[in-house]
Amino acid sequence: MNKHALFLAGALVAAVPGFAVEPAPNGITLPEGYRQWKVLSVHHRSDNNTLRAVLGNDVAQKAARDGKTNPWPDGVVLGKLVWKAVKHDRWETAVEPGAFIHAEFMIKDAAKYASTGGWGYARWLGKEQKPYGADANFVQECLNCHIPVKDRDYVFTHPVQLPGDPER
Amino acid sequence: MNKHALFLAGALVAAVPGFAVEPAPNGITLPEGYRQWKVLSVHHRSDNNTLRAVLGNDVAQKAARDGKTNPWPDGVVLGKLVWKAVKHDRWETAVEPGAFIHAEFMIKDAAKYASTGGWGYARWLGKEQKPYGADANFVQECLNCHIPVKDRDYVFTHPVQLPGDPER
Ligand code: HEC
Ligand code: HEC
Repeated sequence: MNKHALFLAGALVAAVPGFAVEPAPNGITLPEGYRQWKVLSVHHRSDNNTLRAVLGNDVAQKAARDGKTNPWPDGVVLGKLVWKAVKHDRWETAVEPGAFIHAEFMIKDAAKYASTGGWGYARWLGKEQKPYGADANFVQECLNCHIPVKDRDYVFTHPVQLPGDPER
Repeated sequence: MNKHALFLAGALVAAVPGFAVEPAPNGITLPEGYRQWKVLSVHHRSDNNTLRAVLGNDVAQKAARDGKTNPWPDGVVLGKLVWKAVKHDRWETAVEPGAFIHAEFMIKDAAKYASTGGWGYARWLGKEQKPYGADANFVQECLNCHIPVKDRDYVFTHPVQLPGDPER
């Protein structure tokens, strides 16, 4: 490639989120368009001092509103965005997101991911979106932590209640 | 109205979020479709133990990505959804949203809202979305708290950094 072509390639990578992001070691590719997804919940974890936004694709949003979350239907993708939690610079008692840590996903396909409870797991680190895990076994780590909520289809998140939602 | 018409009206109110929500005492009506907006940030406030999702309409999302946030352009609407923060029932060190407390909004129109720094303020309480404020003066309360960030166009929120965003 000449310099001009290299420059163009670089500009493309910078401009198109998700472009040239490597798949996870288990072959899962970065879910397209997760930046456009709506919020399912927000969490603050004090063990590792992080703030999290849990997002869902359209299938997930519909399942959540309809209360069809145990099990979640095939086609659901849940995303979690994690930031370091920092003190707000103008409001002492507010905690806000600092550096971006990682984005991780659970993809529901009961047949395809039968060996891991019906969910495919994947995580990408940092703004550079480096795939997490030395090999496909990284998934055991995810599973170990999500097994305590096996009776809720392996999902911790309770989708938030908003005006217009049915009571449950 | 006969019984049938009443039933239909009731069904409409239940089915269409935002339907029949009273305007705020300053005349601002509930911004349509805020449930579809994307997340700008997430906060945890320890003074009143609440979790917050800050959302922005499309104009706000674009302004945030372009770094055009001081001032924010006309047409921006920022929304904040507030829930009681509760301990997650299966993960001791995670805090998650409990009961929904209120939705509040800042609407940018430099000319129309010149007397309040270019922003229109409004809040609706609870899932029933009762307008907040005895009369139009409730806005002073909002302003008093937002004046400390006057140099940032009255906005506390720093839009989150995500992969694909320019560094700043
Ligand atoms: C140390 C324990 C632990 C490990 C390891 C772990 N998780 Fe989780 N995960 C949690 C907890 C607790 C939550 C809910 C609270 C939160 O937001 O952290 C969660 C939430 C999630 C969510 C949002 C949906 C839900 O279940 O609430 C996704 C997506 C997710 N994890 C993906 C992954 C992936 C992918 C991996 C492995 C690469 C992984 N997790 C490893 C504990 C863990
Ligand atoms: C007690 C102080 C206080 C009062 C009163 C107050 N705010 Fe705020 N507001 C804050 C703080 C601090 C934040 C940022 C942290 C957070 O999420 O709470 C904020 C954030 C917001 C946001 C998100 C955009 C931003 O500036 O970060 C909106 C929208 C908002 N407030 C609307 C209102 C409205 C409408 C009222 C009045 C009905 C109001 N506020 C009254 C302190 C206050």
